[in-house]
Parts: sequence; structure tokens; C-alpha cells
Amino acid sequence: MSGDKIPVQSGNLRVVLVSPRNPLNIGAAARAMSNFGFLRLGVVNAYEVAFREARSAVGASAVVESAIEYASVAEAIADCSLVVGTTSIGHRQLQHPLRRLEYGARLIRRALATQRVALLFGSEKFGLSNDDLSWCHWLIRIPTREEHGSMNLGQAVAVCLYELIRRPAAAKPEPRRSARSGEIDRLTEYLLDALREAGYPRTLSTPAKIRRMVRRLNMPEQDAEAWMGMLRQIAWKLTRTP
Amino acid sequence: MSGDKIPVQSGNLRVVLVSPRNPLNIGAAARAMSNFGFLRLGVVNAYEVAFREARSAVGASAVVESAIEYASVAEAIADCSLVVGTTSIGHRQLQHPLRRLEYGARLIRRALATQRVALLFGSEKFGLSNDDLSWCHWLIRIPTREEHGSMNLGQAVAVCLYELIRRPAAAKPEPRRSARSGEIDRLTEYLLDALREAGYPRTLSTPAKIRRMVRRLNMPEQDAEAWMGMLRQIAWKLTRTP
Repeated sequence: MSGDKIPVQSGNLRVVLVSPRNPLNIGAAARAMSNFGFLRLGVVNAYEVAFREARSAVGASAVVESAIEYASVAEAIADCSLVVGTTSIGHRQLQHPLRRLEYGARLIRRALATQRVALLFGSEKFGLSNDDLSWCHWLIRIPTREEHGSMNLGQAVAVCLYELIRRPAAAKPEPRRSARSGEIDRLTEYLLDALREAGYPRTLSTPAKIRRMVRRLNMPEQDAEAWMGMLRQIAWKLTRTP
Repeated sequence: MSGDKIPVQSGNLRVVLVSPRNPLNIGAAARAMSNFGFLRLGVVNAYEVAFREARSAVGASAVVESAIEYASVAEAIADCSLVVGTTSIGHRQLQHPLRRLEYGARLIRRALATQRVALLFGSEKFGLSNDDLSWCHWLIRIPTREEHGSMNLGQAVAVCLYELIRRPAAAKPEPRRSARSGEIDRLTEYLLDALREAGYPRTLSTPAKIRRMVRRLNMPEQDAEAWMGMLRQIAWKLTRTP
């Protein structure tokens, strides 16, 4: 599991969009990259208008502005020691090892510690071609369901990069500061007063029963005083009501 | 870690988009839901035109078509036992426990095993309002970087749902079937033949050196025969060349 602890060398990753057709998707991919701290975008064989529109879009991120255009996949990956392609399930006969994202991302994180890595995404409609795939060492797939495997390009980029930066969840929950027992007791007394004054059946509100119910609320420390104030006021008002 | 092993009861989750403004985002959220197998979408206070456009878009998924419109957050979550909001870092003073997605998703998975859960996403521009947040038990945030915390709506939905269905990566790599030693030996012989015939310096190509280099390739079983054929042909051609 040690791979999960390595801080991600995000500067060593190049995200490569091959033949993207929709400027919104180029922008969305760049936005996810910026969200997760991967700033090096390469674009191969982009539909020229799409790339220009993505660059000139309002709020286009620095990632799009600094994106590098390459003439071929070979050129885009030339300085990378590991090249990983992305694919949806079984959209063609695969000649490559195919790894689930969870495991593939771990291998990529390890590689990033010392090497440049390229992560390739194909066009919206066709994905990576067999020629594109032939430049890859192996492939990852996002574990989508079989009935609807193909993801939107920007969302696929977001999910892959998220997996690269995610940390294993802490095994223990964060502590929650609960109200102290003395506060709970006073609060319970006000509630019992109010119930008595309101004529609530005594058999349904024995002190022990109410005490247990209040304790099961596991009231946060920050709220105990406010609850106490509300119940005190209600109990006081009820004693004045004929 | 047992929470990670529970199969996700995706039918118990309702994704609720509050005040979405862009039909493309509604469509993108629905697509990610379909990709990851969460089919119940609720929409609150949608900009009417946006919702209609999303429904009528070419390729609108069954998720959008079966989406339910609610008049208020209260109505959208009424049958849920756990209500979780999503937020980007520190966009307002938070009165709620805030959990990183990795940990929050684990709690949601556990709750889904027995209860209905609502996961709320706010509008593209403003996120969830303080009033929206007051209906939540706690909040999750996607671990984006501080400099650019705010995610695209469709991408945020994709990343959250991915975290819900992801499985811990297997600790061990899948086995790779490597070529057997005998095959490697024959292949090495052909390479040595070819190098000798080509006049390559003997000091650089002693059998032991070449054998080590070939073994370091860790050649896959499936490729050994093809490599052997290529090298044999090359060696044969070289012996014919004067």
C-alpha cells in the first residue's frame, strides 16, 4: 500500500487529448486539471476551430492557455517513460493489459515520482484509435457499468485525476464534541417540567425514559446551551399559562 | 475498513440538483449517474427552460427522463434518512461537519445499505445556499486545490459517484505471463547470430551481456514467438548478404 502515501508529482504528468472535437470538452478537461493540480495539457490533432474556441472562451483557464499542440501522438509522448491510455469496456479487441482505474492510478502515482507520464484520452465519439493505443504501455478503464460504459470526456478526465490525488480515508471518524452530562441533565429537567405543565401523560414521560431519549440524541456541545435556553423558556411560559 | 466491502445499494441514493441553470450540466450529471449506476435524479427549483432543454436533448438518458421535479429541498429529501450537501472549500462560514469525499463516501455507502440518502449539489454559480445547507446532516468536499476549488457541476457529480462505487485496489498486480526461458534462449541465439553477421563489436555483445539484456525485457509470453520469427528472418537474411 506504500504507493498511496507518495505525494503526487503532478508536474510529471501530461494529459493528452487526442482528436478532441468539442471546445467545451477541452475546456472542461482543463478545468478538472486545474482543480486537481495537473497543469500540463497536450492536444493532438484537435479540430482547429474547437481548440481556438476553447482558448478564447470566457474564463478559459491558464491550463488551456498554456496547452501545447502536437502534430502526432508520438511527438506528444516522446519525453515520457510511461504512456497510459484510457478506454471504456470492450469497445474493441484489446492487445494491451487493461487495469481498473483504482489500481492503474497507483502505478501511475509511483511512476510520477521519478518519471514523466502521459495519460491519453481519445475523441468524444470514437475514443483512442488502435494506432493511438499502440503507443501505450497499458490501459486503464474507469469502472462504469456495462449498460452505459462510455463517459463524457471532461468527466472522464476529472475522475482519473481525482483518483490520482485521492488519499485513503482515515480509518477513524473525526471526533465530535458532545455536550457534557451535566448540561444534558439540566436540559432534561426543563423538558420534564414542560411536559408536566403541558399535561403530557406521565406514563410516557418518566424521567428515566426521557433521560434515555435525550441521551440518544448525542447532542453536540455547541448546541446544548441553545436547546437549554429554548426548553427553559417554554417551561417557564407553561407555568404562567392557566 | 469494512465499509469498503459493502456492495453499493445505488437504488437508495437520490442525487438532487438544486437550482441548476445550465441544461448541459443537468444532462452531464445524469450521464455520470447512468455511468455509475445511480438512476434516481431529483431537481429542485430548476430554471424551467434548462430542465426542458435537458429533457429534450438528443441522447438524453433515461435518468433525465425519469427525473422528478420537486418544489423545495424539504420535499426532495422528505423520505431520506441522511442528507449530505456538497461544497467547495470555505465558500462560506460552515455550521456543519465537513468531510473529505474519501471518508464521507464511506459513511454514505454504509447508510445506503439500510436507508435512503440524498446527495445535494448546488447551482453552478453559487453552490448550495445557507438555507439549502440547513437541511443537510453534514457536508462533503472534493479535495480540489485551494487556488481553484470550484468544480464544474457535471464533473463534481461524476467524481462523487465514482468515489461511491470505487473499490480498493487489489494489493497485488495481476500476473503477467512471461515467456519461458527456453524461448528466450532461442531468441537470444538468433539475436547473437544477427549481431555477429552484421559486424557488431563482439565486446559489446558477449552472450552473457545480451542474455541479460533480453531477460530484462521481461517479454510477454504472447509476443515471444513473433520476436523469434523476426530475429530468425533477420539473421537468415544477414547470412545471405555478402
